[in-house]
Amino acid sequence: MEMNESQHWNIHGNEELNKSSVSVRGTLNLISTYLNTDDHRPVIAFGRADPSSYPSFRTSSSIVEALVDAVQSRNFNSYPSTQGVLSARRALAEYYSRGLPYQLSSDEVFITTGCTQAIEVIISVLARPGANILLPRPAYPHYEARANFGHLEVRNFDLIPEKSWEVDLEVVKALADNNTVAIVIINPNNPCGSVYTYQHLKEIAETARKLGIFVISDEVYAHMVFGKKPFVPMGEFGSIAPVLTLGSLSKKWSVPGWRLGWILTTDPNGILKKHGILESIQNYKDIAPDPPTCIQGAVPQILAKTSDEFVSGLLDLLRTNADILYEKINEIPCFTCPNKPEGSMLAMVKLNLEQLEGITDDVDFCSKVAKEESVLILPGVGVGMKNWLRFSFGMEHCSIEDGVARLENFYRRHKLH
Amino acid sequence: MEMNESQHWNIHGNEELNKSSVSVRGTLNLISTYLNTDDHRPVIAFGRADPSSYPSFRTSSSIVEALVDAVQSRNFNSYPSTQGVLSARRALAEYYSRGLPYQLSSDEVFITTGCTQAIEVIISVLARPGANILLPRPAYPHYEARANFGHLEVRNFDLIPEKSWEVDLEVVKALADNNTVAIVIINPNNPCGSVYTYQHLKEIAETARKLGIFVISDEVYAHMVFGKKPFVPMGEFGSIAPVLTLGSLSKKWSVPGWRLGWILTTDPNGILKKHGILESIQNYKDIAPDPPTCIQGAVPQILAKTSDEFVSGLLDLLRTNADILYEKINEIPCFTCPNKPEGSMLAMVKLNLEQLEGITDDVDFCSKVAKEESVLILPGVGVGMKNWLRFSFGMEHCSIEDGVARLENFYRRHKLH
Repeated sequence: MEMNESQHWNIHGNEELNKSSVSVRGTLNLISTYLNTDDHRPVIAFGRADPSSYPSFRTSSSIVEALVDAVQSRNFNSYPSTQGVLSARRALAEYYSRGLPYQLSSDEVFITTGCTQAIEVIISVLARPGANILLPRPAYPHYEARANFGHLEVRNFDLIPEKSWEVDLEVVKALADNNTVAIVIINPNNPCGSVYTYQHLKEIAETARKLGIFVISDEVYAHMVFGKKPFVPMGEFGSIAPVLTLGSLSKKWSVPGWRLGWILTTDPNGILKKHGILESIQNYKDIAPDPPTCIQGAVPQILAKTSDEFVSGLLDLLRTNADILYEKINEIPCFTCPNKPEGSMLAMVKLNLEQLEGITDDVDFCSKVAKEESVLILPGVGVGMKNWLRFSFGMEHCSIEDGVARLENFYRRHKLH
Repeated sequence: MEMNESQHWNIHGNEELNKSSVSVRGTLNLISTYLNTDDHRPVIAFGRADPSSYPSFRTSSSIVEALVDAVQSRNFNSYPSTQGVLSARRALAEYYSRGLPYQLSSDEVFITTGCTQAIEVIISVLARPGANILLPRPAYPHYEARANFGHLEVRNFDLIPEKSWEVDLEVVKALADNNTVAIVIINPNNPCGSVYTYQHLKEIAETARKLGIFVISDEVYAHMVFGKKPFVPMGEFGSIAPVLTLGSLSKKWSVPGWRLGWILTTDPNGILKKHGILESIQNYKDIAPDPPTCIQGAVPQILAKTSDEFVSGLLDLLRTNADILYEKINEIPCFTCPNKPEGSMLAMVKLNLEQLEGITDDVDFCSKVAKEESVLILPGVGVGMKNWLRFSFGMEHCSIEDGVARLENFYRRHKLH
């Protein structure tokens, strides 16, 4: 063995992986490096959709107790089954069936490590040579990152800001071909804060049927609506085209750190089963890490005991915050927020670069705002829309006001004279 | 929209995935379908290495309290950072440093969703076109399953039963080429129950250095030794060749269902960082699901408060069980267990088919034993060794005895006359 300096190591990082891994947190980690540690004001975190540490958004005692009870029971220390703990799957099937025209069974529920893994599972199942998937633009970037990683071709259809960020279904039809395997919709929408109508969702299902594909409906923000439109689950239209619904405890129950999500199939005609999708989901889950058994074990009690008041309290906060953000941000000339958010906790805001001096693009803007004002915003490129910004308004009212005031100061210093 | 019967669906399961996903639980799920529900005897589960539900293997109160405290603190409900909760990484770095000739830092620890995800992360980082990885045979099958999924070529080197399942290093050298990226060793060994000596581990490190590759050391069963050989961490030899060590709470702390694992780099010469491996791990983790923040938050208290008595109690049980299994199973002519297990909770047993009538192979044997005796055993093909069997002996003494007695009955009915 040579211990000399000329030792050759056949060791390489994965450059392809480094390129494919666009993520909210990767992008925010980068922007965070610009924060000025000499600025002693609190950082205003418009970047990440995680309000769970703010006092007003803290989860309820009954949710914490449900997990404590599950842990203390010691019934949930062993490996779970591949599909997930049966009592959790039963509880979720029952919970979802209340909003649907048909009864789901526990066989139609797969428990995952947050919605993050639900996306990974589905993309992994769909990724086969030559296949393509239809993704909205802008979108939660995890879909594209996992598709890139799995070599599943992405075809983007734009959401239309002038039409409350609806899907342009003519574009969808033009993009699809015989190798198209699914269409993803996110409702309530991340990153736009829009909520789709019954009619629009029905049209999406009908389009999917025409194309012979199924719908992946990301409903992580299910029921998180505070405008005029009600939340309609895509599963409502499962008899038109099969629907895979993704959900999690992260938002409505305000425990994103518990990493508990699920995939639900609403497919009364049994098409997904017949075509091998359920078997492939099971096969991928066999080689994927499970969410902890104890957190799965807490799900029935969480669903049974979370009060309506807790959730309506969160929605009241988000409604007020959406109002503040929409009004105040539109008063600053370098921003345009085309639609007041009606759901989720996110809004897309256009950056009017022509109003600013010396700012080259959204990443440059976010970097300088981080440095000068200790405000973290996700640049639009992180969700597929250059020179836009994604704001999370899940925070205390006073933080929103403070943050917008800092952005106004930033604008005054950098506006075009 | 046509609602007629001739609707065409462009929906397909992933056949490639269905082929690549060899897993312990997938194999056991298949064998379990042969269980006879009319047999009212308890099922003897030699299949899966999860004794956590047996009274004698139940986790300790202090471990349960650590998680309850973390949940009740409400400090761990938000998303964790990509690399993991800092206090957990610090505690693990300190815990491991005690057994190593150098001090690890929290930067050298990545928290994962069980060791399952640690394997996924590393294989995903290494999977680039043309690359190959050296895997032991037999082995925990998750390495091969993830390598198949990621199109990373697998080259197997046999472990030698006559040499206490040591690695044949001449074969390793012959298998490797310029596209070889790493070698995996599992110590204490799953599925063989062997424990490697200081000298053998050092030779593995020296071989890796000669080949210019790093060592992936699966130490999920670290410290779970009960024979004459002490447990030596591979990180001991990190200055010879860089080592990625995988570990988890699953075995020593008897909470496999908590799904908390880690990757540790012991690389005092900074080779992994220099060659981009740490960056790629971070990039993959950016698009991978995190383990729950609350379980990460419990790690410092778990490491600090788990008593030596709890662990030595587990080891006493496993030692006795290994003795029982080794002696009794070798009394039955259709089995040969070449080495008494000295670590983990697993043993490889050769199936002497020539002693049996009408049994075609290991899968046939396991299916029939499940059906006739309600005994579940993992067929050797599930770990890469046809016509062997993998036994887990993590269970109550009486269950081992009951199980072996049933196997003897099975042998008597099926022996060659």
